[in-house]
Amino acid sequence: MTLLNEQAAGVYVIAVTPFTDEGALDLQSTDRMVDFYLEKGATGLTVLGMMGEATKLTAAESSTFVKRVLARVAGRVPVVVGVSASGFAPMRELSESVMGEGAAGVMVAPPGHLRTDDQIYGYYEMVAETLGKTPFVLQDFPLVTNVQISAAVILRIIKTLPTCVMLKHEDWPGLSKISTLRQASETGEGRRISILVGNGGMFLPEEMGRGADGAMTGFAYPEMMVDVTKAYAAGNIERAHDLFDAYLPLARYEQQPGLGLTIRKYTLAKRGAIASGALRKPGAKLSGADIADIERLVARQTRRLQAVS
Amino acid sequence: MTLLNEQAAGVYVIAVTPFTDEGALDLQSTDRMVDFYLEKGATGLTVLGMMGEATKLTAAESSTFVKRVLARVAGRVPVVVGVSASGFAPMRELSESVMGEGAAGVMVAPPGHLRTDDQIYGYYEMVAETLGKTPFVLQDFPLVTNVQISAAVILRIIKTLPTCVMLKHEDWPGLSKISTLRQASETGEGRRISILVGNGGMFLPEEMGRGADGAMTGFAYPEMMVDVTKAYAAGNIERAHDLFDAYLPLARYEQQPGLGLTIRKYTLAKRGAIASGALRKPGAKLSGADIADIERLVARQTRRLQAVS
Amino acid sequence: MTLLNEQAAGVYVIAVTPFTDEGALDLQSTDRMVDFYLEKGATGLTVLGMMGEATKLTAAESSTFVKRVLARVAGRVPVVVGVSASGFAPMRELSESVMGEGAAGVMVAPPGHLRTDDQIYGYYEMVAETLGKTPFVLQDFPLVTNVQISAAVILRIIKTLPTCVMLKHEDWPGLSKISTLRQASETGEGRRISILVGNGGMFLPEEMGRGADGAMTGFAYPEMMVDVTKAYAAGNIERAHDLFDAYLPLARYEQQPGLGLTIRKYTLAKRGAIASGALRKPGAKLSGADIADIERLVARQTRRLQAVS
Amino acid sequence: MTLLNEQAAGVYVIAVTPFTDEGALDLQSTDRMVDFYLEKGATGLTVLGMMGEATKLTAAESSTFVKRVLARVAGRVPVVVGVSASGFAPMRELSESVMGEGAAGVMVAPPGHLRTDDQIYGYYEMVAETLGKTPFVLQDFPLVTNVQISAAVILRIIKTLPTCVMLKHEDWPGLSKISTLRQASETGEGRRISILVGNGGMFLPEEMGRGADGAMTGFAYPEMMVDVTKAYAAGNIERAHDLFDAYLPLARYEQQPGLGLTIRKYTLAKRGAIASGALRKPGAKLSGADIADIERLVARQTRRLQAVS
Repeated sequence: MTLLNEQAAGVYVIAVTPFTDEGALDLQSTDRMVDFYLEKGATGLTVLGMMGEATKLTAAESSTFVKRVLARVAGRVPVVVGVSASGFAPMRELSESVMGEGAAGVMVAPPGHLRTDDQIYGYYEMVAETLGKTPFVLQDFPLVTNVQISAAVILRIIKTLPTCVMLKHEDWPGLSKISTLRQASETGEGRRISILVGNGGMFLPEEMGRGADGAMTGFAYPEMMVDVTKAYAAGNIERAHDLFDAYLPLARYEQQPGLGLTIRKYTLAKRGAIASGALRKPGAKLSGADIADIERLVARQTRRLQAVS
Repeated sequence: MTLLNEQAAGVYVIAVTPFTDEGALDLQSTDRMVDFYLEKGATGLTVLGMMGEATKLTAAESSTFVKRVLARVAGRVPVVVGVSASGFAPMRELSESVMGEGAAGVMVAPPGHLRTDDQIYGYYEMVAETLGKTPFVLQDFPLVTNVQISAAVILRIIKTLPTCVMLKHEDWPGLSKISTLRQASETGEGRRISILVGNGGMFLPEEMGRGADGAMTGFAYPEMMVDVTKAYAAGNIERAHDLFDAYLPLARYEQQPGLGLTIRKYTLAKRGAIASGALRKPGAKLSGADIADIERLVARQTRRLQAVS
Repeated sequence: MTLLNEQAAGVYVIAVTPFTDEGALDLQSTDRMVDFYLEKGATGLTVLGMMGEATKLTAAESSTFVKRVLARVAGRVPVVVGVSASGFAPMRELSESVMGEGAAGVMVAPPGHLRTDDQIYGYYEMVAETLGKTPFVLQDFPLVTNVQISAAVILRIIKTLPTCVMLKHEDWPGLSKISTLRQASETGEGRRISILVGNGGMFLPEEMGRGADGAMTGFAYPEMMVDVTKAYAAGNIERAHDLFDAYLPLARYEQQPGLGLTIRKYTLAKRGAIASGALRKPGAKLSGADIADIERLVARQTRRLQAVS
Repeated sequence: MTLLNEQAAGVYVIAVTPFTDEGALDLQSTDRMVDFYLEKGATGLTVLGMMGEATKLTAAESSTFVKRVLARVAGRVPVVVGVSASGFAPMRELSESVMGEGAAGVMVAPPGHLRTDDQIYGYYEMVAETLGKTPFVLQDFPLVTNVQISAAVILRIIKTLPTCVMLKHEDWPGLSKISTLRQASETGEGRRISILVGNGGMFLPEEMGRGADGAMTGFAYPEMMVDVTKAYAAGNIERAHDLFDAYLPLARYEQQPGLGLTIRKYTLAKRGAIASGALRKPGAKLSGADIADIERLVARQTRRLQAVS
């Protein structure tokens, strides 16, 4: 399998983990979901991320799920696996296992107790040592991790840890961070790594304008990210915004902390990508009013997209 | 002066505090800003809120600013004053002072160390005792305060503290909280208080659908909140969404934590509401790329609004 | 195996996990450590706790270690196993595994994002459902978990979740919490469960005075907890304090957050309980000055104990 | 008045703010308290600190209290005033006011939202600019502020901000931080500033061993800090520990977060230093059991001190 590298670009969809209504892993839906994401134009997949309910799986289930995804993808696109763990021994074990099965790289978010620059850098130094030759994605998501990583720390990591090949960028606000990192690579101050953005794509056109290479996020309409990044890459900036704006009301609704994944899985189920929108416990439930909101937003989105195209 | 009560509705704009480029209070801009907000349809004003840089003012400056606002408003709309303080003696002092000058009520956010239900309730019990007969707004904004207030705690406050007349709602996600509070008042379980929503209006149409009475937030285009709430009140739901969608791309951009107030003040200055977009230190600065983003979004918004109307 | 119940009392030592200098599980030291704890008077053991570096073990290592401890204990005292996990599926898996091997019960700390009373209660309701008939210890340690559990919430858990049989109490300050829980059981308001105290035993005599049944903590001189609780139980309060005071300077030194476990393992190695004081990464290291401090404190403690006895 | 400088040493007692039982400022007790602290050997005083209930005072009360303390001290020892504030304008106002009245310097703790090294350094750069020529104490107390300041950041502050003359050290664990700072000044890497330690003196002898110049804390028996630092300075290390150990059981009890200040004020009232142990709301209350604990610990401490001397 080709390994993930600094040239990665496009849309890596953060995959959900499909469950049955009873909470069992749904492997048939896993196949269907992989097909769905690839049909919509995904250039990569990321599994066992925060929005993949990874922490709710046993080690055996994680392994089963990753194997199934890799088998279905069959090398068509690279697959990144989230291996964030509370300790380095379980991180190494999971990483070695998934890389052996054909993953392209792994992703690591910082544990929430890290505060000072040296603590954060020191942590990723141990991550790189733990992972060996495996390329990794640095996940920078302060809203959830509660860890604030300055651009200076990221540059230090880029400089000394060659296996860090990608930044999953979801700092907020983070536009200036992308600018800083791109200026550093342009002036030769630091290696240019791939930057894919998260946050449900809520700032995608502006982030592309600052030098992002694409998105790594899980909005239930991945074609939004695909079409916006393509339009942007083709220089059609206003077109990119027109498309983005059409999806924004729903993307915003899906981005609600706490309820977001439930909304996303509901929508994916509605679209036929998975059989059930169920989350494993603990997971929020949608009320009738929530569903009515979604239905209205989807209907409006459909009309708006017709007007745009 | 009429006091704030449970029937308050419409749009209470969270006012900024205008400074000169050198950082002095800008009282002429204060007048202009008040006029601007009222022209755009504000049914109330809220000053010295989190987005009013209240903590950067000396006590004397706060007093000067509030007096100026009250003088300019001249009783045309009610003015709410943020009096969140680290202790009850300064809170009482500020509250008595502004109520004496003609404010309609005050607003109190919880201090960040509160955790358990009893701690939060006990805090507001002391707030009510401190404020005496002054009506107050409970500000529920976990993203910033780090305090999570359950609907049950709010209902307990409503039940036992009659001077709590309004909820400034910016929990996130918070739609179900509005539903719960409205169900409680409909079934007679609790007094119906005013609910005005915040978060830059990012969920305004859906919040109106759940029973909100309007908005209390500070997006630089207050006419968005005014028009959306009016359309909603008139039963034109799709029209409310059309208007909302036109403003959403900019509202989203302004809602970036850390940078949001700088964007808002830049836009207000651009619109002529204040002379300078300067923040007192510490305050973020806009880059050329940030300004280009805003300009593009404003231009697109203008075109879109023409299409909508 | 006898299951843990509400009558548990005495000293449950929080066991460390012994590693070799190279970071491998040290099973021979595991045997020696078990013998050491029992020789010092432990009435129970707790493994895979926060101070047991549980998160640094792979699932297979955890299983190996627990089996080895259980085999060496051979039913002489009950063994509690920490099963705190980021999800319920891995919690169930680990719990079923260790109970099948002969553990007496399990211990669960709350995940750090819990805030409101209902969130905390709801979490333990799901814990109880996940664990089935397995008795569990509620670990209340806000300094580390960042979750504040009020006495009211604990009473609610006690009332409705019969498999909660013990509180590992390390709230701080927490004396009044013990008093509240004991008053509730004395007035029939709630079931009387076992309360064992933590925090390195730093408040042990006062906690015994409020109704604690003993200690569950890991100070490198477990005989302190054993002797203090025995003296207290025999009514020799001043004697209990005399013993406590002799150990307090070292107990305080070991209680330093961040460095504490390194000090504890150093001392245990020095006492011959384990072969190496090594922690798995990430783990703090002792400087020469740290070691000189410990040596001085141990020497002074020895002299002081001679004077007391 | 002589300004605070890098040579400051000894014991700066963190003064409480005395209130009557009704919650009014008690100025007569303020005089008595000043006398008490100086009689016990204080070489400086610090007022309006975290344990001085500063946030519960109005601006006018703060001013009245500081003036009263300065008048009573009458230049016998330097007085440091806490001026931590949510904004720089109020910080400047308070600092200029108290320096004009004869304070020797001010103390500033970081606001809780600071995370990265640059954020913390940038904050103190603005503090220094705000304070002008006024010397300031950097308060490093992560347990309460939630801000972790690395030794590298402190060294950067020392290097570029000459008005930073003292570190109030209450990091925890923090012994290695003192060692690092002292090594830096010995090797000429950085200016040697005064380091006074806090945390109720709980690690005082060890901290003196690492190079602290004394203590700045508020234990109700300031003679402990005075006698321990004197014995240490005279080279009587074991004697310093003997004295320390005699006070440790009570010092530990007073160090309970949440309840500590109530215990301290109770003890100060009992010793006649202030008329009432009352705290302004919100403040914890002592139960009968708490008072019995304190009385026992004081009695034991008295006996123990007789044995030591």
